[in-house]
Amino acid sequence: MSELLLATRNAAKLAELRRILDDAGVAGLHVIGLDDVPEFPEAPETGATFEANAVAKAVDAARATGLPAVADDSGLAVDALNGMPGVLSARWAGGHGDDRANLDLVLAQLGDVPDERRGAAFVAAAALVTPEGSETVVRGTWPGHLIREPRGSNGFGYDPIFVPEGESRTSAELSAAEKDADSHRGRALRELLPYLRQLVS
Amino acid sequence: MSELLLATRNAAKLAELRRILDDAGVAGLHVIGLDDVPEFPEAPETGATFEANAVAKAVDAARATGLPAVADDSGLAVDALNGMPGVLSARWAGGHGDDRANLDLVLAQLGDVPDERRGAAFVAAAALVTPEGSETVVRGTWPGHLIREPRGSNGFGYDPIFVPEGESRTSAELSAAEKDADSHRGRALRELLPYLRQLVS
Repeated sequence: MSELLLATRNAAKLAELRRILDDAGVAGLHVIGLDDVPEFPEAPETGATFEANAVAKAVDAARATGLPAVADDSGLAVDALNGMPGVLSARWAGGHGDDRANLDLVLAQLGDVPDERRGAAFVAAAALVTPEGSETVVRGTWPGHLIREPRGSNGFGYDPIFVPEGESRTSAELSAAEKDADSHRGRALRELLPYLRQLVS
Repeated sequence: MSELLLATRNAAKLAELRRILDDAGVAGLHVIGLDDVPEFPEAPETGATFEANAVAKAVDAARATGLPAVADDSGLAVDALNGMPGVLSARWAGGHGDDRANLDLVLAQLGDVPDERRGAAFVAAAALVTPEGSETVVRGTWPGHLIREPRGSNGFGYDPIFVPEGESRTSAELSAAEKDADSHRGRALRELLPYLRQLVS
């Protein structure tokens, strides 16, 4: 059994990648997370793009462990904000990780923006870096639009104001399974499948 | 003497346009402002671009008065924010016109952005619309970069964190005359000169 490191401490993300590998019939990869490796050096994400951040995190993880490593970076790209908050999604209101402040700020900034210009997409980059140094990075996009009042309590971040294309519910009103089936992160990870398969072929 | 309406209530902007016309030797245009016209309908600026806002304001002004009208819209375009705050410069922190909150938010958002990626530009669009319906819109840009702590007390808006190319002072440390000689608004208005000259030729 080969080990694959997913550079996260989030159990739900680990479960998601395991399920995606299972569903695709990729056997022989044992997915571990950062909690399974000692002393991982957490570096700040200061890249200009999702791709740069995902690659940097995967490079750090592969170097620290000698394992092939997958890392992702994701955020919300709002048309009327020229694609921002983007890589600054988690710190849009200034502090780090205050979901409600970030969401409220986007709503306030878009206060005068009419419905036809409220397009947005969740975007994820996923990178695979091997100990030999090969780097692959792919992107998954989940298009939709932003509403004016938060709805729903599932998910996190900007989920309560994002309505995916073809949906009437926000992504915070979808079940975890519904979200996983469609979301930007899932799309990016599935784009990586051909490369993950090569690790065990 | 022909009248030209500058769609502003700001006396400094009126003086600036009069000076630019004088310096260029454009005689015969009497510049008036919105305080000189009765009951001007103030519309919110909700366009997606500086140009759209400037044209909309000039169209409103020309329609309301039957005079040729000049209007401008301007803001700060930050590279690391994909050109935002842009048309949302005056309401970046959510409320309208809170200069200090807007500036503090940009600094916080750029907290992790290294010096080499702190490029920014002040951008102004200036539109001339005649009562006959001809529309001209031009753009002036003042490139520079953002520092990490506000300096200087002249100017307004983002001036205390913006250092123009070739300067070591912020635009809030320049005198009004120095700023006018170089700034985005002055550049845009001077781009309009050939069209303003036609009004009296």
